[in-house]
Amino acid sequence: MEWSIATCALGGSIEEKLLAIARAGFRAVEVFEEDLAGFPGTPRELRALAEDLGLKIVALQPLRDYEGMPEPYRSRNRERALRWLDLVAELGAELTYLCSNTSPLALDDPEAIAEDLHALAELAASRGLRVGYEALAWGRYIKDWPKAWEMVRRADHPHLGLVLDSFHCFVRNNPLPESADLPGEKIFLVQLSDAPNLLMDPLALSRHHRAMPGQGDWPLEAFLRAVLATGYRGVISLEIFNEWFRAAPPEWVAQDGMRSLKLLFDQLGLLLPPLPPGSRVQGVAFVELGGHEEDFEALKDFLRPLGLKPVARHPALEQELWASGRARLLLRGDLEECPTRELPAVLGVGLSVAKAAPLAARAKELGLDLLPREEGGPSFTAVRGVGWTRLYLVDEPLEATLSFQPLGEPGNTLDRVDHFTNVVSRFEVYSWVLLYKAWLGLEVNPVVEVFDPYGIFYSRSLRNPEGTVQIPVNTAEGRETLASRFLQSLGHAGIQHIAFQVPDLFAFAEEAQKKGFRPLGIPSSYYRLLSCRYALPIPLLERLEALNILYDQDPKGGIFLHLYTPSYQGRFFFEVVERQNGYAGFGAANASIRLQAQARELGTKPGARPVPGP
Amino acid sequence: MEWSIATCALGGSIEEKLLAIARAGFRAVEVFEEDLAGFPGTPRELRALAEDLGLKIVALQPLRDYEGMPEPYRSRNRERALRWLDLVAELGAELTYLCSNTSPLALDDPEAIAEDLHALAELAASRGLRVGYEALAWGRYIKDWPKAWEMVRRADHPHLGLVLDSFHCFVRNNPLPESADLPGEKIFLVQLSDAPNLLMDPLALSRHHRAMPGQGDWPLEAFLRAVLATGYRGVISLEIFNEWFRAAPPEWVAQDGMRSLKLLFDQLGLLLPPLPPGSRVQGVAFVELGGHEEDFEALKDFLRPLGLKPVARHPALEQELWASGRARLLLRGDLEECPTRELPAVLGVGLSVAKAAPLAARAKELGLDLLPREEGGPSFTAVRGVGWTRLYLVDEPLEATLSFQPLGEPGNTLDRVDHFTNVVSRFEVYSWVLLYKAWLGLEVNPVVEVFDPYGIFYSRSLRNPEGTVQIPVNTAEGRETLASRFLQSLGHAGIQHIAFQVPDLFAFAEEAQKKGFRPLGIPSSYYRLLSCRYALPIPLLERLEALNILYDQDPKGGIFLHLYTPSYQGRFFFEVVERQNGYAGFGAANASIRLQAQARELGTKPGARPVPGP
Repeated sequence: MEWSIATCALGGSIEEKLLAIARAGFRAVEVFEEDLAGFPGTPRELRALAEDLGLKIVALQPLRDYEGMPEPYRSRNRERALRWLDLVAELGAELTYLCSNTSPLALDDPEAIAEDLHALAELAASRGLRVGYEALAWGRYIKDWPKAWEMVRRADHPHLGLVLDSFHCFVRNNPLPESADLPGEKIFLVQLSDAPNLLMDPLALSRHHRAMPGQGDWPLEAFLRAVLATGYRGVISLEIFNEWFRAAPPEWVAQDGMRSLKLLFDQLGLLLPPLPPGSRVQGVAFVELGGHEEDFEALKDFLRPLGLKPVARHPALEQELWASGRARLLLRGDLEECPTRELPAVLGVGLSVAKAAPLAARAKELGLDLLPREEGGPSFTAVRGVGWTRLYLVDEPLEATLSFQPLGEPGNTLDRVDHFTNVVSRFEVYSWVLLYKAWLGLEVNPVVEVFDPYGIFYSRSLRNPEGTVQIPVNTAEGRETLASRFLQSLGHAGIQHIAFQVPDLFAFAEEAQKKGFRPLGIPSSYYRLLSCRYALPIPLLERLEALNILYDQDPKGGIFLHLYTPSYQGRFFFEVVERQNGYAGFGAANASIRLQAQARELGTKPGARPVPGP
Repeated sequence: MEWSIATCALGGSIEEKLLAIARAGFRAVEVFEEDLAGFPGTPRELRALAEDLGLKIVALQPLRDYEGMPEPYRSRNRERALRWLDLVAELGAELTYLCSNTSPLALDDPEAIAEDLHALAELAASRGLRVGYEALAWGRYIKDWPKAWEMVRRADHPHLGLVLDSFHCFVRNNPLPESADLPGEKIFLVQLSDAPNLLMDPLALSRHHRAMPGQGDWPLEAFLRAVLATGYRGVISLEIFNEWFRAAPPEWVAQDGMRSLKLLFDQLGLLLPPLPPGSRVQGVAFVELGGHEEDFEALKDFLRPLGLKPVARHPALEQELWASGRARLLLRGDLEECPTRELPAVLGVGLSVAKAAPLAARAKELGLDLLPREEGGPSFTAVRGVGWTRLYLVDEPLEATLSFQPLGEPGNTLDRVDHFTNVVSRFEVYSWVLLYKAWLGLEVNPVVEVFDPYGIFYSRSLRNPEGTVQIPVNTAEGRETLASRFLQSLGHAGIQHIAFQVPDLFAFAEEAQKKGFRPLGIPSSYYRLLSCRYALPIPLLERLEALNILYDQDPKGGIFLHLYTPSYQGRFFFEVVERQNGYAGFGAANASIRLQAQARELGTKPGARPVPGP
């Protein structure tokens, strides 16, 4: 089976798109009408360009408002079709297709529709071409594939078949294709796109929210399985419309497309060779933090009140391992030369895995970059995470690989890393959700939207089944949001905060306070409103307030207690959390308060506001 | 009647919000729960802050998931209410309200609901407070105001009334309030928001697309008229949730709110004093273009092939009036010192109006800035348009006010200015659509969305009834879109292109070609696809292609022919259009092709792409 992607999924010029598609490993492409129209050359030249890149043009898409029109449109449409088929032939495509008519003039006349389809197929046949018919969810009369299939059967022409698009099937709640009713050889093309479960007009959903299989909420596996059961073995093409995809570099989108198909086919056991199976990811072994040499001491001062202390030190370099419980930080002050990123920053995260090698192999197969071992850095295999961060695959004790001098035992104020948040551009949310899911086998939680004081904040989080690895992927709309400011200051995506889990946050906070810890200040009004929300006992509220602890409840009685550090030089910050009774979220109810408090802490960014206004 | 706005409508800290609200002329404000929670002080301090700004806190919003709950929640809710009412009292508000219960645990038990409402009203009464009940469109059982009103009647307490929100009424297709059924004194608060006619989940529409009255598609006038007919004379409050509003400077949003209320009340004849009536805007008298002195000649070379020629010159300054037909350009090369904007740029547009003074008065009343006469510039009254552009109000012949030396007669290659496009940030679309509509009485066309090769392009356009003044207001999502690049290079909003109308575009283009005119190149593939779209006669297609003319048809047989100049130093560009058979659009079907051609012309912007990717 051949994999294809439609040019409309990507941003850029058609030449950039084809190059990105070819580089991602595709051998076939659907050319979208507008991309051809913008190409400064002939269709034959576009074909040659594609062929030079090893790409076959599968189809020119789509012919519109064709079938079932009244006169004089009907006669005119024959002329339109002749011209269209010429173009298709010049592109070297063997297939084209028409979308069901959306014109207000279209007739609800199955006989006329079938006749028109037959006539078109006849014209195509005379050129050796085939024609597919696709039911658009917003077609005037033909909205569902069973109805389109009825028309195809009625037209009864060997050069006429059906185009099935998962989007239109799912958005209209169509039945999955049944092998008994629909022979695979009458399916001429299968298009895949996923989408989130948003209740909205299908056209608007299609135009703005389509995504690669695995990036949305729909059962694409079931769809593909049903398609394959019909005997279909033709082209599987990704047809995505989404402005965030067009705004992203085309090579990212093409790579995501390839990953998404690999994952989907692998899940059905159809990828040859199959993806390397990977290995269970079990927890966070360590977090790597870097600052300039001159602020290494300041970084340590920032960490000490959390109960973290040095447990080992590099004999020569400015590197120390700090720990508390199973929470470990590798501090790097040896990074004077660090041209690729700004400091201070979270440089990487060590993931505890059962076996590193199969995960590295799986990462490679999914197009993630394996990074060369950094001189003086940890010796684990590293995969490139968001921005320039490193995701180390840790399958042996950290101490065994670091030839550090021991300094002492860790305390036990902290238990372990609870989660680490990735802050990324809006497109990258799609990309990283797919990558983490495909590579590490993490589960994806639904989107959380929170009012940011300067826009809106979106979060999707991933977790392993045990909840010992949790990765929120956050983005925001609005130039002055905390997430946008983080991205602007770093120049790219990164890890913005690390949360530590403790068994007793009150005990932790009281202890930390004694050591001079100053948490992010939470206004007393928050506690007044919290009091109104849950009618909590006054002594509890007073204790929360005294320690700047935020509180959330879930409907099942789960409780979340959390506090934040101020941000370190406006860059990264820490959170300390306690989870009671299986609370599985991240305190979204408090996110707006936290964001407001952080915005106050950072102050207004000068010049961030567009001037002048209306 | 008092006008209020809810703090949730604005971005920033609560202090910034209150300041902006007060400065816009409001005397009352609703405080949103999250804004209070983020305030670093006591509720009494917030009240004092508001009072110092001349603002009365109308209500604290909202109490949630209160009525009709099973035990133990029901008992707990009494305690919640007591604490909530304390807060309300400390804020100095006399009113609070609860939104209908959305909890999955809520009971469909009208008797319990009425009991709970009664008990709450009793608690409120004992503090001298009143309680409103609002039907949320996504409430569990109470989704419509008539149902909420039924509960209020059943609860029957003088301190309990109804809160009416236009959003929930319209999104659920509720009937307008009828004076016979609903006495005005039982309405405790009226909230207004508009929204576009988008078919989507009401909660998502509410969270992302609410807008000020006049910025959406709903009949807010009819709503307000019905409310007033009940005898209601209480507070009218703007309650808007929209991330673009929060991303904008709060003072813009507050000013828009004030404008929108003025317009709405004026339309009902209830504004005292009424808005100055304004005056008909009839056409575009001239466009003012500026370049540095050193490229004044280059600017002229750019214009000459369009058939524009000098008709008058300033005796001392580098200023010339160029014209063709009624299309006139005031060229400024005298702007070496121009600290507020980048050059070259469109500096302003002269609007032909019946009378300037009433339009200036109306502009002032709507909060538009009247600009001081610029030394050496045109002497007409000027209002500040998008960015730093000037909108001159021209009510006498241009020649009479410019003491220029005549140079010759204009030719007649062009007829007049067809439209001038404003490119603005996303929030400003809301703002300028409202301003143009309220100030000039223009009609607003529906949103047009077009695939940009690097994102998505949105356009709303305004027009006077005769179509002699047409103003598209454009924005785009995606950092590399043409609109974004224009905004980035200018540093703020501006006028990006001017379209001239001609009676015969072929004649114009052939004539221009002879003068060495080089239009924006349109690929031949566009004409191949155009051929397929309308089956146009081949000679027509050949002629269009030879002259780089784009073609569009509307369903009623209107035809639009248009071509573009290259952009002048990557900044502004011109379009020349011919409208046949009443074609009223702007060639949206060709926008993607035009944007692709322009992106090719400009080349890739170095460093625009975020690095590195997934």
